[in-house]
Amino acid sequence: MIPPRRIAILGSTGSIGQNTLNVIRAFPGQFKVTALAAGNNVEEFKRQVDEWRPDWVCLAEKSSVEKILPALPSSVKALAGEQGMIEIVQRKEVDLVVFATTGTWGVAPLLAAIQAKKQVALANKESLVMAGRIVTDAARENGVKIIPIDSEHSAIFQILNGQDPKELHRIFLTCSGGPLLHVAKEQLKEVTLEQALKHPRWKMGRKITIDSSTLMNKGLEIIEAKWLFGVTPDQVQVVIHPEAVVHSMVEYRDGSFMAQMGVTDMKGPIQYALGYPHRLPAVTERLNLVEVGKLSFSLPDVDRFPCLRIAYQAARGGDSDATVMNGANDTAVEAFLEEKIRWNEIPELIETVLSRHQKCENPGLARILELDRWAREETTRLIGQRSKAWVS
Amino acid sequence: MIPPRRIAILGSTGSIGQNTLNVIRAFPGQFKVTALAAGNNVEEFKRQVDEWRPDWVCLAEKSSVEKILPALPSSVKALAGEQGMIEIVQRKEVDLVVFATTGTWGVAPLLAAIQAKKQVALANKESLVMAGRIVTDAARENGVKIIPIDSEHSAIFQILNGQDPKELHRIFLTCSGGPLLHVAKEQLKEVTLEQALKHPRWKMGRKITIDSSTLMNKGLEIIEAKWLFGVTPDQVQVVIHPEAVVHSMVEYRDGSFMAQMGVTDMKGPIQYALGYPHRLPAVTERLNLVEVGKLSFSLPDVDRFPCLRIAYQAARGGDSDATVMNGANDTAVEAFLEEKIRWNEIPELIETVLSRHQKCENPGLARILELDRWAREETTRLIGQRSKAWVS
Repeated sequence: MIPPRRIAILGSTGSIGQNTLNVIRAFPGQFKVTALAAGNNVEEFKRQVDEWRPDWVCLAEKSSVEKILPALPSSVKALAGEQGMIEIVQRKEVDLVVFATTGTWGVAPLLAAIQAKKQVALANKESLVMAGRIVTDAARENGVKIIPIDSEHSAIFQILNGQDPKELHRIFLTCSGGPLLHVAKEQLKEVTLEQALKHPRWKMGRKITIDSSTLMNKGLEIIEAKWLFGVTPDQVQVVIHPEAVVHSMVEYRDGSFMAQMGVTDMKGPIQYALGYPHRLPAVTERLNLVEVGKLSFSLPDVDRFPCLRIAYQAARGGDSDATVMNGANDTAVEAFLEEKIRWNEIPELIETVLSRHQKCENPGLARILELDRWAREETTRLIGQRSKAWVS
Repeated sequence: MIPPRRIAILGSTGSIGQNTLNVIRAFPGQFKVTALAAGNNVEEFKRQVDEWRPDWVCLAEKSSVEKILPALPSSVKALAGEQGMIEIVQRKEVDLVVFATTGTWGVAPLLAAIQAKKQVALANKESLVMAGRIVTDAARENGVKIIPIDSEHSAIFQILNGQDPKELHRIFLTCSGGPLLHVAKEQLKEVTLEQALKHPRWKMGRKITIDSSTLMNKGLEIIEAKWLFGVTPDQVQVVIHPEAVVHSMVEYRDGSFMAQMGVTDMKGPIQYALGYPHRLPAVTERLNLVEVGKLSFSLPDVDRFPCLRIAYQAARGGDSDATVMNGANDTAVEAFLEEKIRWNEIPELIETVLSRHQKCENPGLARILELDRWAREETTRLIGQRSKAWVS
């Protein structure tokens, strides 16, 4: 019998974290949840610890850890913050680390996991967008495979698995188009928070749903693809595919296309990452292509969705562009979620912040975090000045 | 520099044979046409020999060979018949054999090529339909990979390449639906030869175009898939896909689908087979999925196209069923092409002949050829008796 694969989940209370536990629940005896780490959702975390009995737990804040300490068995080691996550991923009792944290949280633990030669399942976009070069260099040096959990990158990874990457011609990232696909340009200024949060296909967190509405989500994925698969941004084409059945495609040099398809359920890419290199029996529903009936494909409208154009430019630009774009986008989306700015101000803010930043090539992690902080502060400052005409 | 791959093409004057030469023409220096063999299209064959200067040539009939002999350089060795093909595939100067013969021609040379451990590119359906067990057993014993040239099986082969076949759940063979997809049942009796020959997507020979109109082509492919990929007939599902962009699909155990797509040009699968395991630069146009716009999928109507039902039964039945079905179909289609029978009589004839044949398990090659002959004679006999009520 194969011993259970020992898993650490960073970001266990979020959507990907919870779905990871749902997948694990379906395969009793095949996985052991060795460590759980989360942000500040203490109630859900307590429930998870109670069910899974991990050996290590970690929360973002010391004060949160103190809240759960009394209920923990004495054998459980409780840690806090990024340093706690780093300690967890380095444990020899951990085989695979699921990175389901959001935001910049997770870059340092990801590098630590790679240096400790752990298998890595990566859902956190920011670590590749901000630090793609550092992360993929470290993975190559340490012989670590990064298994992406994004449905698009999981698709490409599944397609390329075992194929010669030199024979790849182009990558097509499919895009459902988000909740505002059919809204006319002049009406995009009036988009409400409620409208932008109504994703037609995928159930996801609020931040990523807004990114889907601006197509910045796809923009971030172009940058992720660049690092994960060693392609140029111009080798990545975005295709609007509202049915969200084709999760992404590869075109080989000989003109042969390969498309990975499935239902729209994040448990698919998660179970692929957990079982890799093997495929586990399906925990999701099966795709019924005849029931779907039709699949459609069209080009995105960068005029209505300028975030996509901005992201292409950032992907082609220096490494600092992607970091700054990501920080500005994060801050702008947060402001939109708080109804402080309008939807169409998101790209305007990002573009202004990008144009003002001090470009820098091959920044180290410290410089990246500094750029990220600067971009956030600059965006916040611009939002504060909204009564003045801030758009350059 | 890599020495050119030395190729023998059996069936060089047919559609696949000519397209194979078109692909080779696009890669000067990468291939050498060492041998050409054809049936009785002497004029085209003479032109090919003139262009390609093979070291061996072979025609079906001695009398045809005598016609071309005077024009051949003395260094060229001219052979005749199946024995000639067998001699060619065994030559040490041949690396890869393309089997583009039609009908039962080619089973014995195929086995000879496999035993001589040549790489095999297979377009001839009959050899797998009639002798799938013998052929695939021999391939396994000799460590030979059979690279299919059918677009559907090439698709499945490309998808499964390097993947664990145990993780395969189902195969979906896509089917354009053929020229009669939208003809109502009562009108199928009145189908003319001209109507049945108008294939909407693929340019192919007359026999295979009629097989596409009855869906028997898909039926034969189910049996081919059974042998090539080790699946049961019930693991093979036929899906009507009129755009013919998806060439076939695999569903893995985890619910992940993989679809291979491309333009409808046989040069695609041919160049894959010639270059395998590498992918050559495209000689076909590139697929523009956005221009295609929509892909649609539906279930086949076995009521209007009973050949598909018959083929499933034969695939599930003993090995002799497929041989008899194929022989009866060949003869019936020929009679339809000669306008001796109606279109809807094709399945009726096949079913009658199948019901009358003496079943037999694991037949050897001699017995298979005997069954094939019997099926053809029995079908011819039934067609001759058409004035009497032959349908049982």
